[in-house]
Amino acid sequence: MNYTQIVENIKRKKSFLCVGLDSDMRKIPPFLLRKKDPVFDFNKQIIDETNRFAVAYKPNLAFYESRGAEGWNTLLQTVRFIRSEYPDIFLIADAKRGDIGNTSGLYARAFFEKMDFDAVTVAPYMGYDSVSPFLDYPHRWIILLALTSNEGAADFQFIRNSETGDQLFESVLRKAQQWGSKENMMFVVGATKAEMLKNIRDIVPDHFLLVPGVGAQGGSLAEVAENGLNNQCGLLVNSSRGIIYASNNQDFAEVAGEKARAIQEEMAVILNQHDLA
Amino acid sequence: MNYTQIVENIKRKKSFLCVGLDSDMRKIPPFLLRKKDPVFDFNKQIIDETNRFAVAYKPNLAFYESRGAEGWNTLLQTVRFIRSEYPDIFLIADAKRGDIGNTSGLYARAFFEKMDFDAVTVAPYMGYDSVSPFLDYPHRWIILLALTSNEGAADFQFIRNSETGDQLFESVLRKAQQWGSKENMMFVVGATKAEMLKNIRDIVPDHFLLVPGVGAQGGSLAEVAENGLNNQCGLLVNSSRGIIYASNNQDFAEVAGEKARAIQEEMAVILNQHDLA
Repeated sequence: MNYTQIVENIKRKKSFLCVGLDSDMRKIPPFLLRKKDPVFDFNKQIIDETNRFAVAYKPNLAFYESRGAEGWNTLLQTVRFIRSEYPDIFLIADAKRGDIGNTSGLYARAFFEKMDFDAVTVAPYMGYDSVSPFLDYPHRWIILLALTSNEGAADFQFIRNSETGDQLFESVLRKAQQWGSKENMMFVVGATKAEMLKNIRDIVPDHFLLVPGVGAQGGSLAEVAENGLNNQCGLLVNSSRGIIYASNNQDFAEVAGEKARAIQEEMAVILNQHDLA
Repeated sequence: MNYTQIVENIKRKKSFLCVGLDSDMRKIPPFLLRKKDPVFDFNKQIIDETNRFAVAYKPNLAFYESRGAEGWNTLLQTVRFIRSEYPDIFLIADAKRGDIGNTSGLYARAFFEKMDFDAVTVAPYMGYDSVSPFLDYPHRWIILLALTSNEGAADFQFIRNSETGDQLFESVLRKAQQWGSKENMMFVVGATKAEMLKNIRDIVPDHFLLVPGVGAQGGSLAEVAENGLNNQCGLLVNSSRGIIYASNNQDFAEVAGEKARAIQEEMAVILNQHDLA
């Protein structure tokens, strides 16, 4: 999916919501456990009820890998389901991979060829040649970790460069813009630091930012939008637990749909206010 | 496997060799492609011929993931084979994972419970809570990326901290020592910078260092040993392509064994010189 298509989908759906499919066998409604592939059934129902309000889905690989080959198959089925039923969805593998060049190329193959993801999240620590293999695929995306939303982000991401004065996450944002364009690269920016979004938007005016942590983790959508929107929207805001685990009963998918709709409606107001819908 | 057992295995085998199982369907001897699971067959024969000369094996996950659920099964079979046939082997999942706390916990479950690895490589960018879930498993190990051997390492790992004067990889080494001990944490240190090993050994005198890139990538074993050994050895030196792809014919496993033996013999001399065998 290319940049223009993403922007068009956002305007048409009046939504920049990404739903995180952090689907955990131990957290899905117990009655689903009777199914042959409970997590796929969970995902399918969640997607059926939320896709009208979302432009992107983001399975986190850890939830699938923790179940081995079986989980890997669940993920593949989920990707195929989205691809066949909802082709306008931007599909993100939240994998946080990264290795030396040749090896990163194999991860790119895993997510872009073996499975049909549009984008993969990648950790920046190993630098350019760990990132570049993902950029070789036309209309596919890399989403590079810049500022993460967890407590441990403070351990290294705020280290200030003695030469440039930049913090590490700012160095990542600046350097990575030399590697990819707004057409094939996005950045992960944690919403718990919404006050820092304005500064980040100054550094990367054109790129999409993937903002996790709105919802269950308490980030404010209005604040994120205020500081993070650009003239093409430029934001994908993720919510996982706040949507997919909103109910643990027979009505789980319906309730997830309502939660997604509530966020979408808030987003529609914001997009209208900014002449983006 | 605990620290004492690793040291004992090194002394008994007179080897600190780790064999990297970067087993690629496109690079294994073509005659194996007739087998039901060619990569497992390749791994099995390589392991049978090299295990006397090695203390550790390190499959890189990218090579298996690039084949989806099938590759995941090959990896699982390989782990089971090593566990049942060669229980003195230290088994490393070279996965370079890392995510927010809860999610890293699922990666730990994948590698330590779903599969029976002793250790997982982890990227440090997200800080403490991405690392800590791996430390909750007794006698299991985290191997944290510090200084990698690829060109892109220079992009961020050498950034100097304006407060402490440390380069980023040095900050990682110092901070991570507050998180784990020499009993559950090792560090990845690229051998192409062997001259920096002495400095690194000063920062982390007690921990094991996993050194990739000796062999095909041209690092010198003598130089690595000179600068990296401590009084319990404290080194695992990895070779992948130089061993496993040394021959592409019917004799591939035998030739791999000879390559591993040659490195082991060099290691035996080094260990004797340092009263470590």
